[in-house]
Amino acid sequence: MSTAYASLVASFTKLYRYQHLANIVGWDQAAMMPSKGNEARSAAMAELAVLLHETLTAPALANALEAATAEPSDPVETASIREMSRQWRTANLLPASLVEAKSLAGTRCEHAWRRQRTANDWVGFLENWRPVVACARKEATLLAEATGLSRYDALVDRFEPGMTTAIIEPMFSDLKRWLPPLIQEVLAKQRTEQVIKPTGPFPIAAQRALGIEIMGLLGFDFEGGRLDVSTHPFCGGVAEDVRITTRYRDDEFVQAMMGIVHETGHARYEQRLPRDWVHLPLGQARSMGIHESQSLSFEMQLGRSRPFLTLIAPLVRQHLGDQPAFEVDNLVRIYTRVRTGLIRTESDELTYPMHVILRFEIERALIEGEIEPEDVPALWDDKMSAYLGRDTRSNYADGCLQDIHWTDGAFGYFPSYTLGAMYAAQYFAALREQVPELDARIASGDVAPIFDWLDQKIWSQASRWETPELVERATGAALSASHFERHLRSRYLR
Amino acid sequence: MSTAYASLVASFTKLYRYQHLANIVGWDQAAMMPSKGNEARSAAMAELAVLLHETLTAPALANALEAATAEPSDPVETASIREMSRQWRTANLLPASLVEAKSLAGTRCEHAWRRQRTANDWVGFLENWRPVVACARKEATLLAEATGLSRYDALVDRFEPGMTTAIIEPMFSDLKRWLPPLIQEVLAKQRTEQVIKPTGPFPIAAQRALGIEIMGLLGFDFEGGRLDVSTHPFCGGVAEDVRITTRYRDDEFVQAMMGIVHETGHARYEQRLPRDWVHLPLGQARSMGIHESQSLSFEMQLGRSRPFLTLIAPLVRQHLGDQPAFEVDNLVRIYTRVRTGLIRTESDELTYPMHVILRFEIERALIEGEIEPEDVPALWDDKMSAYLGRDTRSNYADGCLQDIHWTDGAFGYFPSYTLGAMYAAQYFAALREQVPELDARIASGDVAPIFDWLDQKIWSQASRWETPELVERATGAALSASHFERHLRSRYLR
Repeated sequence: MSTAYASLVASFTKLYRYQHLANIVGWDQAAMMPSKGNEARSAAMAELAVLLHETLTAPALANALEAATAEPSDPVETASIREMSRQWRTANLLPASLVEAKSLAGTRCEHAWRRQRTANDWVGFLENWRPVVACARKEATLLAEATGLSRYDALVDRFEPGMTTAIIEPMFSDLKRWLPPLIQEVLAKQRTEQVIKPTGPFPIAAQRALGIEIMGLLGFDFEGGRLDVSTHPFCGGVAEDVRITTRYRDDEFVQAMMGIVHETGHARYEQRLPRDWVHLPLGQARSMGIHESQSLSFEMQLGRSRPFLTLIAPLVRQHLGDQPAFEVDNLVRIYTRVRTGLIRTESDELTYPMHVILRFEIERALIEGEIEPEDVPALWDDKMSAYLGRDTRSNYADGCLQDIHWTDGAFGYFPSYTLGAMYAAQYFAALREQVPELDARIASGDVAPIFDWLDQKIWSQASRWETPELVERATGAALSASHFERHLRSRYLR
Repeated sequence: MSTAYASLVASFTKLYRYQHLANIVGWDQAAMMPSKGNEARSAAMAELAVLLHETLTAPALANALEAATAEPSDPVETASIREMSRQWRTANLLPASLVEAKSLAGTRCEHAWRRQRTANDWVGFLENWRPVVACARKEATLLAEATGLSRYDALVDRFEPGMTTAIIEPMFSDLKRWLPPLIQEVLAKQRTEQVIKPTGPFPIAAQRALGIEIMGLLGFDFEGGRLDVSTHPFCGGVAEDVRITTRYRDDEFVQAMMGIVHETGHARYEQRLPRDWVHLPLGQARSMGIHESQSLSFEMQLGRSRPFLTLIAPLVRQHLGDQPAFEVDNLVRIYTRVRTGLIRTESDELTYPMHVILRFEIERALIEGEIEPEDVPALWDDKMSAYLGRDTRSNYADGCLQDIHWTDGAFGYFPSYTLGAMYAAQYFAALREQVPELDARIASGDVAPIFDWLDQKIWSQASRWETPELVERATGAALSASHFERHLRSRYLR
């Protein structure tokens, strides 16, 4: 290890420890903190954001990066330096004042949104949101100037390195071509199906116990993580201590249960990141799209499949009592039911991409300056009507106020969801070629081959390869929407 | 405000924000974190401790302190500078390497202790504890050299400014004179009393609901705090978001309920610290003894009194069911029952000071270098036998492994408990002179006069005055053990 690289490792280890603090207090803010704690918390988190930024922008670190890049190094060290440089570039393009303003505006807007969404208070939200959008546009402009990307693409690049509107838009246009007719075809098919609605109440303690058991079956390590509750489910914490959350309703368990399967996918990726690299950018998850491909492997490829529902049906009956709705055939109908609903997080595998495309189109226009924050509700109404035939006028709570992402300025993130769905379909196509009788194995509880494949191909690789190479090494081919289309047609029309 | 003072305010505001992070992740470590998170957490907390230390030892801060001290300032600003100087002195005497080593050794020892205590594993504990003691001795030596105090007094001074062995030892000698005979007298009196033992189980959810209701009655602000569970109950978090913990057993509720009353006393002090000063040393709690005087005002002066138990008896019956044990007379007998037990935190008002005196004598000798860590169990056994007539040989779990304090090096803290009991008795003597019919008011639910008095005399004053002046302004006289003795004789012998 060269002196320059050793100095980089020391700096990035310090950053990793500061980031640990940020992740834990961030989880606490969403899952534990009472309301009066927010002002002091926001100030503390902003101070920490400044500190992270100062550490990443220290001249000594820039010098060490330059020196290390110029020296010969082995392939892993080269990849490690590449990922350090990526983080360094992003941070060094932004002045400390913008980093602090963005963090303050974001935490304030997000915290107030928790009440404002319930109160359908778009006007109140808009007031806090303008500074969030203003900061994001400044950030986009600075990143665009430095990278030569468009402003929106510069934001996307933070979450999915190498992905641009020029790649996304044709893929999304393709989806817009075949997905709406497929949705209609499936809706027509499902109109004749009888679905028995589970009868509640479902005590929250029982739902939690069921969730814990399913997490165990999916390999979640409870000595290195927790399950808690928050308004918007997420996977947070740190690789050594992964915190997932869900939300429960006592008249419904279907969403909460599958939400737990979804977050467990994120969690296992984090829990299995290589410990030798955990303190370095090299050891972090590859990208948001790859992260989402893990949660969607768990939820869509595995969780909603007939063999997996066959496996867990006895657990559902054990925790929530026996009833006809818990027969496997009916569980499959519930978990593959298509509805053109208003809420993205409650939507199904088929309509989800249309929710994402709607958000992608709006946030792209917002960041490129083609529209203003106050234009969002009307655009939302138009697109929701055009893509899913639903009316959201005046219903901000179930419209543009439904997501947490825009509240703290995470523009450019939404495409990752649908990229993730496409990656996941491609993994399982490859996996099925390698593992014979996969469905029979899953139904009998032999789920290990899936996790072994993901562990070997994705989790253990962390940020060793750039996204396209990671996917190609794992599946033998570049990303294509064809596996996703084949998966959907096979699941919903057979 | 002078330029120098403004610069001090900026530095201490930054420290306050870093300290916020330390307090929240510290609470999380004790109340939430799974075991595999500990290594990364310890490293992150040690990094943060170094950062806090670096901020307090920056040359610019020293220069600003010197300049501000030399300039004329109003009385509040003068007090603020005095408290800044106190924090600065403590930090600047310790090298960063010692701060980091101490934090690492402490968190490692404390975490392992949580298992080792259960396993009665003194040998395993000793291995982690030696470096903790070594760091504390180094710290004591450096502080002693700078202050002219003895090594142990230099550690006590961190928790109770101005308090020394020369003051404590005569007061404790006085207690050792009249308390053991009083204990014997009370034990003889109580031997004839019938105490009905409450019959469990007491579901934890019901105990928690009862605790929450009592916290409300005691004025705890749930929008600015939480109640959770940890092995060793404590009050943590930050003034704006106070986190108290308790521990439950389903065959017992007496300790958990009064533990909640105790921690609520700490919590209200924090929640009512003046918000204008919250970001400065001036706005922090005065000392550990004064903090303990709040929890003991709540637990001993108020909580275990007949009028308070009269007030809450209906709530106990409402949450835990009606039974003869919950009659007021019997609750009073339970909560004033004297037992010469092994565990400090479960001991009663009368025997508690003897537990403290035992620890004070051992830790003083340990820090002064008169004994070594491996000598502690035998000394513990001897003193426990002499003071309370109990045998702890080979029972480390209920002996010297029972407390969290020594695991992370908080030597010098124990005297604060008994100082706190004496302060609290003196407050209530003063309060009874000002508020007529206090007992009748408490029994009828009119507890506000107590909180108003504490708020005005103690909480709102924060660190405005040094401890002796704070107590004298509040009660009209210097600290004396006579109020404590009168309180004990009146409660236990009438």
